[in-house]
Amino acid sequence: MPADTRRKRRPPRGEFERISLFTRAFADAGPDVIAGPGDDCALTRPAPGWLLVSKVDQIVEGVHFSGAFRPEEIGHKALAVALSDLAAAGAIPRWFLVALAMPEGVEDRFLSRLAMGMSRLASQARVSLVGGNFSRASELSLTVTTLGEARPEHALRRSGASPGDALLLTGSLGGAALGLRRLAEGSARRSSAAVRAQLTPTPRLEVGAIAGRYAAAGIDLSDGLLQDLGHLCERSEVGAELELAAIPMAREVRALGAEASLPLALRGGEDYELLFAVPQARVAPFVRAAARRGQILSRIGRVVEGHALRLLGPDGPIPLPDRKGWDHFG
Amino acid sequence: MPADTRRKRRPPRGEFERISLFTRAFADAGPDVIAGPGDDCALTRPAPGWLLVSKVDQIVEGVHFSGAFRPEEIGHKALAVALSDLAAAGAIPRWFLVALAMPEGVEDRFLSRLAMGMSRLASQARVSLVGGNFSRASELSLTVTTLGEARPEHALRRSGASPGDALLLTGSLGGAALGLRRLAEGSARRSSAAVRAQLTPTPRLEVGAIAGRYAAAGIDLSDGLLQDLGHLCERSEVGAELELAAIPMAREVRALGAEASLPLALRGGEDYELLFAVPQARVAPFVRAAARRGQILSRIGRVVEGHALRLLGPDGPIPLPDRKGWDHFG
Repeated sequence: MPADTRRKRRPPRGEFERISLFTRAFADAGPDVIAGPGDDCALTRPAPGWLLVSKVDQIVEGVHFSGAFRPEEIGHKALAVALSDLAAAGAIPRWFLVALAMPEGVEDRFLSRLAMGMSRLASQARVSLVGGNFSRASELSLTVTTLGEARPEHALRRSGASPGDALLLTGSLGGAALGLRRLAEGSARRSSAAVRAQLTPTPRLEVGAIAGRYAAAGIDLSDGLLQDLGHLCERSEVGAELELAAIPMAREVRALGAEASLPLALRGGEDYELLFAVPQARVAPFVRAAARRGQILSRIGRVVEGHALRLLGPDGPIPLPDRKGWDHFG
Repeated sequence: MPADTRRKRRPPRGEFERISLFTRAFADAGPDVIAGPGDDCALTRPAPGWLLVSKVDQIVEGVHFSGAFRPEEIGHKALAVALSDLAAAGAIPRWFLVALAMPEGVEDRFLSRLAMGMSRLASQARVSLVGGNFSRASELSLTVTTLGEARPEHALRRSGASPGDALLLTGSLGGAALGLRRLAEGSARRSSAAVRAQLTPTPRLEVGAIAGRYAAAGIDLSDGLLQDLGHLCERSEVGAELELAAIPMAREVRALGAEASLPLALRGGEDYELLFAVPQARVAPFVRAAARRGQILSRIGRVVEGHALRLLGPDGPIPLPDRKGWDHFG
């Protein structure tokens, strides 16, 4: 958290005042929310016959965000990363809960701005805040649980990929990692797309909402392409081939040249793009359906027999040093 | 966290090894869990026509637990406090997600024991771990999201109480606060019921599972009787009268004598007993149904018109200094 938020201009607030200050930023929930913040539990009405899709994600000061983040960006990112997983599962996000832990001296203004950044994304994503928790802690952290729904026949897992499936990817890679580096170097322009990708990633909800009709497996790229593709392959008991020339890189990443851009695109984490394994016959319809929603899907490789992950360059296979991406303990 | 857990006997583990070490302690989920830990999201099958009941709760090292807690007790308590809210809402707990934040040097043994304490309670409560998240942080914290279900006509909120309703309470009060004091003083015997109430509170799930058939409103006592009853009254726009002689106190609390026991029973937090407002005609059936499940319900007062909270002693009303209970920021 930026140091200035630790200044105490007002006496520290009680837990209940903080809850009220925070929840005030959020729009009233829809008719599917019977009880929301302020009750012991949230009561929500699931769509009949659909599966419940749930996910918890956490961002911690100094680990997932630094003092370079504005409060709005912290709030946005905490929700964005948890929504992204729901999109990868082909789910429609509906509701979310937030556990906020923070030092005592955090100012009202900081908390309001944090709530505002989260609330703005919540409105765009049409998800309702339905519950939360405040706690004192020595560092700021936000734990977001997202709840969504998927038709049973459309819910995606990591384990559904089969040899022959195409690998389709949303957006472009490497931007968030480059943005992180620039923020660390202090050379960041906030208008840079790479810096925006790091500060306020966009969960690919439009694609997630239709992905279940076309894809056989899905994952979101939080830890880097190689590592997350590795997870998908492991769970599906398959291998994969990636075509280097087909991997879309963020413009600023590509501009760095091949040697510098490749590690960012392959192993840079936090892009929150979605990767799907899609049976061949459904590739074209999926790409068209995404395009109608303004989303580009790139075909970056294919699922193969075995366990190996191979990268194909213009002159044949390129050796992969390891699958390692971003590991918060690594 | 106890200092000995910070000793590094082995090199720090990666995120994925930790996840595997943690999830290993938990039993396989039932057929209502289609995807659990290891996928991007949990996929679970809700009971048709029931409401989803969700709650997030967080416990933080140094705020909600101290070095006096064994790892098993930390794991137990994190899940217990989140389950308790579901019971207060008249819900059947089904699934839960855990976000674990911890310093790098935490040992495998500590993590396994923490998982074991949580897994034991999960088995008793018949809830399945369906997802989680690991993150590095400077202090240990556990954020638990519990997901449960309630029939729409049986889901309880804080806002359902009406003048004339009886106030029914599970168990007895003050034990957890006394246990906390004894642990702080270093004078705790671990076999003491008060100390157990602090270290490993028992969520009243047997009562929660039937409460919706009888009660009109419910809340769990995490912040102390007066404060939590205050919340219930505020949301229901009613007042309440408590009969001092009827308030069940933990044996060790009562043994302290009237002057010392009263603040513990009225304002001591963390007992995780359940308080219900119950229409008169349903009091006796509710008490009998609870008794058949081995649970005692005490009638401690009633809901009245107005907004005031009054405590009735043998010689008439006893002044209440304030409603304040346990506020983590207070």
